[in-house]
Amino acid sequence: MTQTPGALLEVTRASIVAVDERARAGALDAHNALAKPPGALGRLESLGAQLAAIAATSPPPRPHPAAVAVFAGDHGVVAQGVTPWPSAVTTAMVATFVAGGAAISVLARTVGATVEVVDVGMAEPAGDLARIAETARNRSRGGEATLSQRKVRAGTGDISVEPAMTTAEATAAIEVGIETAQRLIGAGARGLVMGEMGIGNTTPSAALIAALCGVDAAAATGRGTGIDDERLAHKVDVVATALARARGATGGLDSDPLRTLAELGGLEIAALCGLALGGAAARVPVLVDGVIALAATLVAARLCPEVVGYCIAGHRSTEPGASIALETLGLSPLLELGMRLGEGSGACLALPLLDGAARVLGEMATLAEAIG
Amino acid sequence: MTQTPGALLEVTRASIVAVDERARAGALDAHNALAKPPGALGRLESLGAQLAAIAATSPPPRPHPAAVAVFAGDHGVVAQGVTPWPSAVTTAMVATFVAGGAAISVLARTVGATVEVVDVGMAEPAGDLARIAETARNRSRGGEATLSQRKVRAGTGDISVEPAMTTAEATAAIEVGIETAQRLIGAGARGLVMGEMGIGNTTPSAALIAALCGVDAAAATGRGTGIDDERLAHKVDVVATALARARGATGGLDSDPLRTLAELGGLEIAALCGLALGGAAARVPVLVDGVIALAATLVAARLCPEVVGYCIAGHRSTEPGASIALETLGLSPLLELGMRLGEGSGACLALPLLDGAARVLGEMATLAEAIG
Repeated sequence: MTQTPGALLEVTRASIVAVDERARAGALDAHNALAKPPGALGRLESLGAQLAAIAATSPPPRPHPAAVAVFAGDHGVVAQGVTPWPSAVTTAMVATFVAGGAAISVLARTVGATVEVVDVGMAEPAGDLARIAETARNRSRGGEATLSQRKVRAGTGDISVEPAMTTAEATAAIEVGIETAQRLIGAGARGLVMGEMGIGNTTPSAALIAALCGVDAAAATGRGTGIDDERLAHKVDVVATALARARGATGGLDSDPLRTLAELGGLEIAALCGLALGGAAARVPVLVDGVIALAATLVAARLCPEVVGYCIAGHRSTEPGASIALETLGLSPLLELGMRLGEGSGACLALPLLDGAARVLGEMATLAEAIG
Repeated sequence: MTQTPGALLEVTRASIVAVDERARAGALDAHNALAKPPGALGRLESLGAQLAAIAATSPPPRPHPAAVAVFAGDHGVVAQGVTPWPSAVTTAMVATFVAGGAAISVLARTVGATVEVVDVGMAEPAGDLARIAETARNRSRGGEATLSQRKVRAGTGDISVEPAMTTAEATAAIEVGIETAQRLIGAGARGLVMGEMGIGNTTPSAALIAALCGVDAAAATGRGTGIDDERLAHKVDVVATALARARGATGGLDSDPLRTLAELGGLEIAALCGLALGGAAARVPVLVDGVIALAATLVAARLCPEVVGYCIAGHRSTEPGASIALETLGLSPLLELGMRLGEGSGACLALPLLDGAARVLGEMATLAEAIG
C-alpha cells in the first residue's frame, strides 16, 4: 500500500452519504401494492425498504453472494486473567476456520456465504500462521476459508496498564478493514458480515461500549465464553481500571473516537470498524454480529454517523454490552436466539432474511396482477 | 383411495411414537465437545438436539430439501362479514401460488424449498380451478408450484349457524394431509412446512383456539388481514356465536377433538392437522406457521399428544390466538418478525435455522480437534 497512512480512512469517510430515503419510501409504497394485506410481512417490509435505501434503488439488489470477513487479533489484557483461554486458542480457531470446521464455517455454508479470515493482529508470527493454515487446509473437509495476512501488530497492549495501540496502528487496522470490504465487493460480494476471533476480545469491547455509551464497567461487561461469578467480578475491575487509565491519559475519551479505539480497543475491532465504513461507502449492507462487532460499529458511527444506516443487526447477543450498544445505535436485531459465540455466527444466520426481504420486493406479483 | 374412511388416520395415530430422548441427550453431549464454548450457540443447540430426537439419531439429518404444503379451503362464515375479502380471492391467490408470484413462492425459493398447493376445500369448482391454474402457469416467471386436486367439499358451512363439516369430511380432509406428507416425503422432502390459504380462516382458527385452549372469543380473535375495530368487534361476536352453537350442539367440545374440528374448523385446517400427523409418523420435522397452522396443531396434539415433539414453531404471528396456542402447546417460535400473512411464510423463513442447527452437529470440528 503506497497510500499515505490515514488517507484511505479520510477518503472513505468523506465518500459516505446518508442512505436514500426516497428509495426507502418507494419500497414501502411498492409493498402496499403487493399481493398481500399491507403490512402483513412485518419486519420483512421495513428490512426490504432499508435495503432499498442502502442501494438507493427499489426494488433493491439481493445481498447475494455475501461474504463473512473474520478479523483475528490478540489482546494483551489476557495477561490479567479475564478469560481462562490462552491466546494460542485464537491461532487454533483460525486454523479451524481455514479447515472449514468452525461454527461460522458451517453456518456460512448453510446460507451460501463465503468466509475470509484476515490476520490483522494475532500474536502468532505470520510465518508460523501460514504453516498452520497450510496444515489446516490439508485436513479440510471442504468449505474452507482463505487466510489473508494483514498483521498491523502482534496483539494489543494490556489496556489495564497501557494503550491497546497507537492511533497510527488503529488507523492502519481500520484501513485493513476498508480494503477488505473493497476487495470482497470487488470480487462480487453484495452483502458483508462482520466476524471476528480473538481470545479476550469481550474485554476491550466492554471497555469501548462503556466509554462510548456512557455506562459503567459493570453494566457493559459480560461472561464472554462463560466465566464464573468470581472471574466476572475481576473482569469488571479490569475494565474499570482500563477506563480510568484511558480517561486519565487522554483527559476524556468521548471527543476523539480514534483515540478511544487506540486506548481501549483491539486490532480486529478496528478492522471491523473499517469493514462497516467500506461497506457503507460502496452502498452494500453490512450485517452486524454480537458485542465485538457492535463495539466496532459504535466507533464507526462516531467517525461517520451516516454509516449506521448501512448496518443491520443480525442477532442480539446475550452479552449485556450488546443490548447497550444496540440501543445507542438505534438498531433492532432480526434474530434473538441466545447466541454468544462471535465469529459472525449470529449475523450470518440473518442473511436469508435479507435475501427474502429483497426478493419479495423484486419478485412478488402485485395485488392488481393477482386479483385483477 | 380404496381405504376405509378413517383407517389411514387410525393407522397413522397408532404409528406415532414419542421423539427419542436418548438421541436428544446425545446431541446435547456432542454440542459440549464442539469447537466453541458450551452453550454458545444458544437456541441453535436445543434445536439441533430436537432434530436429533425427531430423527432418533445424532447428528440428525439435514431438513433438506424441504417442502411447503399450502392447503386451500373456503369458509361459509365469510357470509357473516368477518373479512372484507371475498372467497374469490382464495382462488386468485392459488393461481398466484401456481404462477410463483406469492410471498410464499418467493420465500420458499429463497430458502430452497418447494411449494405444493392442495385444494382440499375451495369453493371454486375443481374444473374451473384447473383452467385457472393452467393460465397461471403460462404467465409464470419461474418457481411455480404444483396444484393437487383433493377437494373434500366446496367450502365449509357457516360455523355461526351450522357445523363446518361432518366428522367424516373432517376425517377425509385430515387424511388428505397425511397422504400429502407421505407423498412429499416419498419424493424426498426431509422437512415439511405448514402453509394455507383460505379467505376467512382466522375466524375458525380463533374458534378452535378458544375451544381447545379454554379462552373466550375476544382473547383468541384478531384482526386477520387487518380489519378495523368495528369489524373486529363483529368478528368476536361471530366467533362467540359459533362457540355457543357448537357447545350446545355437542354438549361440550373438549372431549372429542375430531368433533370440535368438524363443528368449528376448516378443510385446510384439517389437512394441516393431517400433515403434522404424517410428518410425525415419518419422523420428519414439521414447521408450524401462524394462527391457522397452530389451530391445526392443537387438534393434532389432542388426537395424538406425541405429535408436538415433531413440531417446531417457525415464527410468532401477531394474531393473539397464536400466542395462546403456542403457550398451550409449549412451543417457542424461532422468529418474531411481526408477520401475519399465513401461506407458511413465517415458518418457511425459519428453515435455514433448522438446517444450520443440523449441520453444526454434523460438520463442526470438536474442540479436541481444534486445539489438540
